[in-house]
This record gives sequence, structure tokens and C-alpha cells, in this order.
Amino acid sequence: MRTIKLLIEYDGTDFNGWQRQASPRRTVQAEIEKALQKIFGRKIILYGAGRTDSGVHALGQNAHFLSSSAMPVEKIVRALNGNLPPDIAIIEAEEAPAGFHAQYDARTKIYRYTIINRAERNACYRRYVLHVPQKLNLTRMRQGSRDLIGQKDFRSFQASDPAVLKKGKRRSSVRRIKRIDFKKRGDMIFIEIEADGFLYKMVRNIVGALLEIGLGHLRTDSIRRILKQKDRSASPPTAKPQGLCLVEVKYGPPQMTHK
Amino acid sequence: MRTIKLLIEYDGTDFNGWQRQASPRRTVQAEIEKALQKIFGRKIILYGAGRTDSGVHALGQNAHFLSSSAMPVEKIVRALNGNLPPDIAIIEAEEAPAGFHAQYDARTKIYRYTIINRAERNACYRRYVLHVPQKLNLTRMRQGSRDLIGQKDFRSFQASDPAVLKKGKRRSSVRRIKRIDFKKRGDMIFIEIEADGFLYKMVRNIVGALLEIGLGHLRTDSIRRILKQKDRSASPPTAKPQGLCLVEVKYGPPQMTHK
Repeated sequence: MRTIKLLIEYDGTDFNGWQRQASPRRTVQAEIEKALQKIFGRKIILYGAGRTDSGVHALGQNAHFLSSSAMPVEKIVRALNGNLPPDIAIIEAEEAPAGFHAQYDARTKIYRYTIINRAERNACYRRYVLHVPQKLNLTRMRQGSRDLIGQKDFRSFQASDPAVLKKGKRRSSVRRIKRIDFKKRGDMIFIEIEADGFLYKMVRNIVGALLEIGLGHLRTDSIRRILKQKDRSASPPTAKPQGLCLVEVKYGPPQMTHK
Repeated sequence: MRTIKLLIEYDGTDFNGWQRQASPRRTVQAEIEKALQKIFGRKIILYGAGRTDSGVHALGQNAHFLSSSAMPVEKIVRALNGNLPPDIAIIEAEEAPAGFHAQYDARTKIYRYTIINRAERNACYRRYVLHVPQKLNLTRMRQGSRDLIGQKDFRSFQASDPAVLKKGKRRSSVRRIKRIDFKKRGDMIFIEIEADGFLYKMVRNIVGALLEIGLGHLRTDSIRRILKQKDRSASPPTAKPQGLCLVEVKYGPPQMTHK
């Protein structure tokens, strides 16, 4: 059996998220599995590095599947792209070491949140950005974000995931955020977060809190208080999904880091 | 009568270009004129800085209209955005000096062409970029572009515009290109062209030629030969519209330059 790793891009707007569902709703995983079945003539399960929500995009999602086929990886890429809708693209396929797992072997993931900060709404790129009409204070947001860096219990930023609760396997909510970077270009603000893992809706909840700090509705030292309470209800509203993009998944050990 | 100048953004994908048409096809000018009529209760003509083709986007289109209304400019912006579809946004309105004309007073226009240069197609931003799978040589493209700079007769890069031909007013094809800049970020290539004016499909025809040079299908000194022939049939194919965006229109004299 070969383990094939895919590098995947998608426009999340018209998907009900990554994860295959019992209902006939359109999901990224289900679309790629359908294409794999067409190509290899049998049902294949695709394991993603992480589940993205409805409306969340990916420039660097990763996933793997097992195959006994000898098809060269370049041909797999072409065959998949030929059988996928225009809002999903396979950028690369490669053979991974036996036992490789796209989710469990991920060392860090990088998400980017894009905001357009000006009075008037935008027309271009409206699928990929959040419009915030009130002036955001980036210095305050940077200050506020510092308390998020490092290994912490992020329970206050975790949404209750119905699927997880049902299965009764509520695991540790401790994660390590490596960095949060802010960039500004014209009216656009980019927030990039790298962590060893993210809880359900954690990025969007963190961005929601940082926006409140940037708007002056929360103090810059609020994150410390919110973290301490270990309770989602202590935290500000979740930011909308359309500004969010899974940019990269890094795999370890370092010498085999993939984009 | 007040002269109101608008700064306009649009996603050109689902429009049949800027210009109002006799047929009921969706155009940017017609949509904004419809909104103006709703707001001011009478038919208003909107004059654009330039007509963009079907599928071409704008981050900085400019236009003006005349009005006897005393409505403050901030209110005009809000009222228009409230009556426009999501793929058009008014970013700014301001009162221009009497006699101002969005097209005739434009000093230069800046167009940007965006290319994704990698083997596999993309999913995100696919409305805004041209996918070129074969490797482009940017050094060759830069070299080739040099012969375009300055005041020249660009007849070889002008498409025969049926509207212009019909009216029998084929005007001078001499224009001045101020600069052509190339930027590369990852797989993305941005070509920015600033000129005092553009002939019909001139940007797309120039980019078409530069792509042929970048792919090695044309020599880097081909532009000089093509310009000399003063004949569109001498020039390579027109580049597709979806990579093109009208970024900015500059107005003179310098002290009143607007974004």
C-alpha cells in the first residue's frame, strides 16, 4: 500500500466545510473522495490535516489516502484536477512514508484572517475578506494578542462541537500558539496565527476577541482574563468564516517540512 | 449643478463590461445609473473614466454625474451602496470642480494584470487571475517590455472596436506608456501598466505579447517589430480578461491627484 499526500487549495464559499456528511450537502472531502473513486474505481477514504468550517478557504490544506495503484503522482494530480469542480484544486501529490497521517503528523498549522478596514464595503475579493467599517487600532490588537502566545488552555476560545460532545471524547484544550503576526497593506489587515493545533472554531473566536480589542470594546489585557475563566461564554463573538484561510500545514521532523 | 465624482470598485466576472448597452445585459454603468435614478428620482447619466471589457475588474474606476440635489456626498455613498448589487461598491464620492470630466480629465490610468504561474490550476481567486501552466521567464518579459515605454503609435496593439469603426471616428492611436512594472510573489506575477490612455483592448494585447516573450515563443526584441508594423494582425493573441483590473485613475494637475 502506498500513502499519497495531497496539497489542496479550495474556495470554501460554496462548501459546507471540509468534512463529509451524511446529508447530501457539498463538502470538500466528499468531492475529492468522489473524484478518487472515479479514478481508482473503488471507494477511498481521504484523511485531512484539519476540518475547516463552512465558508473557510484553504491555500494549503493537506490530506492523505492509501492506494495500491502504481499511478505516478503527477498523473494523480492531473486526473484529480480533471474530475474536480473549479473551486477545488490539487496543487501537488507526493508519496509519503508508510504510516504517515495528515492530521496526526502535522507539527503546526498556519491560518490567515483577512480584514478590509474602511467605511465602505468592497466588491472584489468579497468572498475572502471580512469587512470591518469602524477603524481598528492595530497597536491595541498586537498588544492584546501577546497573552495568547505559548502553551495555554484555550477552553475559553473553543466552541462546543456537537460531534465531539456526542462522542463523549472531550479531549485536552491545551494548545501552543507559536506566533500571531499582523500585517497592514492599504485598507487590508492580515492576521496570521501559527499553532501546534486548533480547537473547534478557536481561530475565529480568537480573531473575534482581537477585533473587540481593536475597536476599543475590550481592554488590551482582556485575553488574560478570558483565558483564566476557561469558559466559552466569557469570550466575545466568533468572527465570520469568509475571512479565514488555512494557509499552510507544516510536518515534522523539520527536514521534511512541506508547504 | 454639482459635479459628483465617484470612486468605484467592481468584480467584473458577472458583468458585460462597464458600458450601458441597448440589450438588457448586465453592465456596471447601467447598474449604477439605475441606483442613481432610484435615489434622485430622475434619469442620470454616469460618465466613466474608461470602459472596461467583460470580465475585467476595477479597484479604482472613477466616474462623474451632474446633480442639482443638495445631498451630502457621504449620504450619496451610503444610498448608492444600499441600492447596488454586492459586486459593485462605491468607495468614495466627492464634489468635483464645475466642468470636471472623469474621462477627459484623467491624466493617467493604471491597470494591473495578475497571473498564477504554476503547473496546476488554482481554486481561490480564480475570478481574478490568469493561470499560465508553463514557466514564464520574467527577465525576458522585462526586457521585452522596455520598447513599449514612452510615446508611441500603438495601432498594432489596438483591437478593432466595432463601436468606434461604426461611428467612423478612428482617432489617433498614439499613447504614452509611463511605466510597466513586474512583481513576483510566490507563484503570482503582477504586471502593472501606467499610461496616459489605452486603446481598445491595448492592455490585454500588450500582456498577450509579453506572455509570448516570457514563454520563449517570441524574441525579446519582438515588440519593436510589432510596433513598426502598425497592424493588429502582427501581434500575438489577446490575454484573457479575468486577470485584468483597473487599479487607479490619476487626475491632474498633480495637487488634486485622487486614488
